Amino acid sequence: MERLVVIGGDATGMSAASQARRLKGPEDLEIVAFERSHFTSYSACGIPYWVGGDVDDRDALIARTPEEHRARAIDLRTRTEVTELDLAGQRVRSRDLESGAESWTAYDKLVIATGARPVRPRLPGIDAPGVHGVQNLEDGQTLLDTLAAARGRRAVVVGAGYIGVEMAEALLKHGFEVTVVNRGEQPMATLDPDMGRLVHEAMDGLGITTVNDAEVTKILTAPDGRVRAVATEEAEYPADVVVLGMGVEPETKLARAAGLPLGVYGGLLTDLAMRVRGYGNVWAGGDCVEVLDLVSGRERHVPLGTHANKHGQVIGAGVGGGYATFPGVVGTAVSKVCDLEIARTGLRERDALDVGLRFVTVTVESTSRAGYYPQAAPMTVKMLAELRTGRLLGVQIVGREGAAKRVDIAAVALTAGMTVERMTALDLGYAPPFSPVWDPVLVAARKATAAVRKAEG
Amino acid sequence: MERLVVIGGDATGMSAASQARRLKGPEDLEIVAFERSHFTSYSACGIPYWVGGDVDDRDALIARTPEEHRARAIDLRTRTEVTELDLAGQRVRSRDLESGAESWTAYDKLVIATGARPVRPRLPGIDAPGVHGVQNLEDGQTLLDTLAAARGRRAVVVGAGYIGVEMAEALLKHGFEVTVVNRGEQPMATLDPDMGRLVHEAMDGLGITTVNDAEVTKILTAPDGRVRAVATEEAEYPADVVVLGMGVEPETKLARAAGLPLGVYGGLLTDLAMRVRGYGNVWAGGDCVEVLDLVSGRERHVPLGTHANKHGQVIGAGVGGGYATFPGVVGTAVSKVCDLEIARTGLRERDALDVGLRFVTVTVESTSRAGYYPQAAPMTVKMLAELRTGRLLGVQIVGREGAAKRVDIAAVALTAGMTVERMTALDLGYAPPFSPVWDPVLVAARKATAAVRKAEG
Repeated sequence: MERLVVIGGDATGMSAASQARRLKGPEDLEIVAFERSHFTSYSACGIPYWVGGDVDDRDALIARTPEEHRARAIDLRTRTEVTELDLAGQRVRSRDLESGAESWTAYDKLVIATGARPVRPRLPGIDAPGVHGVQNLEDGQTLLDTLAAARGRRAVVVGAGYIGVEMAEALLKHGFEVTVVNRGEQPMATLDPDMGRLVHEAMDGLGITTVNDAEVTKILTAPDGRVRAVATEEAEYPADVVVLGMGVEPETKLARAAGLPLGVYGGLLTDLAMRVRGYGNVWAGGDCVEVLDLVSGRERHVPLGTHANKHGQVIGAGVGGGYATFPGVVGTAVSKVCDLEIARTGLRERDALDVGLRFVTVTVESTSRAGYYPQAAPMTVKMLAELRTGRLLGVQIVGREGAAKRVDIAAVALTAGMTVERMTALDLGYAPPFSPVWDPVLVAARKATAAVRKAEG
Repeated sequence: MERLVVIGGDATGMSAASQARRLKGPEDLEIVAFERSHFTSYSACGIPYWVGGDVDDRDALIARTPEEHRARAIDLRTRTEVTELDLAGQRVRSRDLESGAESWTAYDKLVIATGARPVRPRLPGIDAPGVHGVQNLEDGQTLLDTLAAARGRRAVVVGAGYIGVEMAEALLKHGFEVTVVNRGEQPMATLDPDMGRLVHEAMDGLGITTVNDAEVTKILTAPDGRVRAVATEEAEYPADVVVLGMGVEPETKLARAAGLPLGVYGGLLTDLAMRVRGYGNVWAGGDCVEVLDLVSGRERHVPLGTHANKHGQVIGAGVGGGYATFPGVVGTAVSKVCDLEIARTGLRERDALDVGLRFVTVTVESTSRAGYYPQAAPMTVKMLAELRTGRLLGVQIVGREGAAKRVDIAAVALTAGMTVERMTALDLGYAPPFSPVWDPVLVAARKATAAVRKAEG
């Protein structure tokens, strides 16, 4: 009988465990999974919507409870932290966080799914009551408690990425005056600044104040120790509550200590079957790994639940004796702030420059439906195409209802290595309630085709 | 100076003329365009929404008026019908429908964009007052007048394709009791019957009665000559108004008489540059041509504004000395009945069988957003994949908000010849307001991948 040990009980770890269990019964494979928290298999991406009140119940975010996993013959040990990997000895050391007891568990196959940890700079005051991360379910509940008890209605969000803008919306829904303090030139640094500016303007329109090019230097506290303001070099922003949304980095402390291969972003490096490079019996996936960006050919760190789940499936297949691969990503992401939809895929201008690509960019304004149809909503589409070849390099979309998921068209086209000229003839769904007769993505592709030709001429 | 003659002043004809004009000024190219009606460049696809009251104003459907075209140095002759093509003599004969005067116009280059005509079987009573087609703007206005003056509130729609179901919705909005009489096994014969059944059930839920497997044998009239009922072999359906939605066929009478090559559906056959096959100076596009189906390798007749506009662009480029092609279609179409969204792309089961393909089918139920997110709406996705190769062959979707445009993912994947296994790893936009962590299309692709493997094993 073989034993599989899984470190981390969230999307990747438990998907891998479940998939392996489907392929191999308890008579062939023992599965032990370690999870630090009380929870398994929950949607961290859903936390902003739970905090904002769109989702009533924390438990709705839990796809599968520890009990459900145990009922499938997975020996799941919650509140248990793995503290050491002994690769030569094929064993892991773990500590029961309740009792403090430590023990070693041997494995034949190992899955590392330790996720990511929030970036949390060592600023003065950052641990003050009223300063919150929103990484896990405990964080969400603590924040909700703080919001209910807050003395005033001023909130500062530090960071203007996905979590930052989603939390700005959530705080707005709680009736807070929201200021987002952003170190970048514009919110949503995953977009080019010209597209980020559209997000900034829309946030202004929603009553969210965004301060760009602002580095937080400290968190100021009141005499009782609670947060009272966020300070940058230029100014102070009064705050009854502070939410940190400064991104995450791979949680690979164990892996690093064990000498496993890490990339430039600190994530584990794997092969296409999600095995740690150079190791036949160690898999890794989810927010603790780097993934191949199929457009740039470089590894990136893309912490997203959708990849984590795919990794879990691929790992589970491999562990269970099946075959599956994860070919890489094209960098698709969608988000929203109230009714503003934001989407991107592929390379930004700076990404393309970084890998030596030369390109044209075009930006078009269109609508989500036929212009004459009710609720036709404006949409801006930016497209990058490689010089000479005309290959699609990236798309960014900012708009209203119906804007964001259009990025999937570009995501598939990028995967297929399509040129923008070929895209102009794509047979996309058209009817007045769904699209103008020229879909906005087609309009951008036409304009990009012309720009590539002109740049050549 | 060359002269371009364009027959037909709607999407293809006027797009071609406009694009040619952009490439060549009036000093190089004279453009004469003939149009039978008063109108140019209007959205026929918008007529059901105008009749239904979603769009207030007929003129909103007109993208560019005859005056606007004339202001761009296009000699546009409305209410003028072309009655003969003399290909050997490079001239067309036309008749002024007001004065009856006929004349010949010589051309150097010719564009045939004569569109489609509604199928209108020679049934007794079909020309009775109260029986309406909805092919053009005049039809829409006449129908609106009839609806306003109708003696009762019973409407029968003959045909349950796109126009049929869209008109059923429009009539419902006018407070009519609507019966759809459908010769097929289920509504929406562009779907497989198992998916059409979902449309049927949803139409039931909306209060639209659908009678399947019913062939109309005659239209019954009242003593004053107005329609009073629609009869099939089995039954009579009382009707104060009847709308015909039995599809369209290519309008190629002129082309046929001139000996131009037609396909099995009666549409003109062209090359990739939209030149009529065998003719260097005659182009054709829009609803009067057949297009290559890239999935089956066969020609099909796909009368859709989105193709017509693309054809116009390609033809205009060719006429103007540029270069563009229309590679073909994959058969994408989207529609809705009230809040039910319907989409399809690629091959149905019978299409695949017709061309000798063997395949697996899978059907999955999912939601448009994360299950815990408000307004997560149910969605059914059916997917066909080829045996052995696993190549995607087709997708059909029936659901609510957010369902239909997901078909674009499959449309691009079909264009790229992707396998369903490759599709399982597609990097599609994920966030709880936009998609479950496994997009419904990915769930279908996973299930299809497993089905292909199982069928091989």
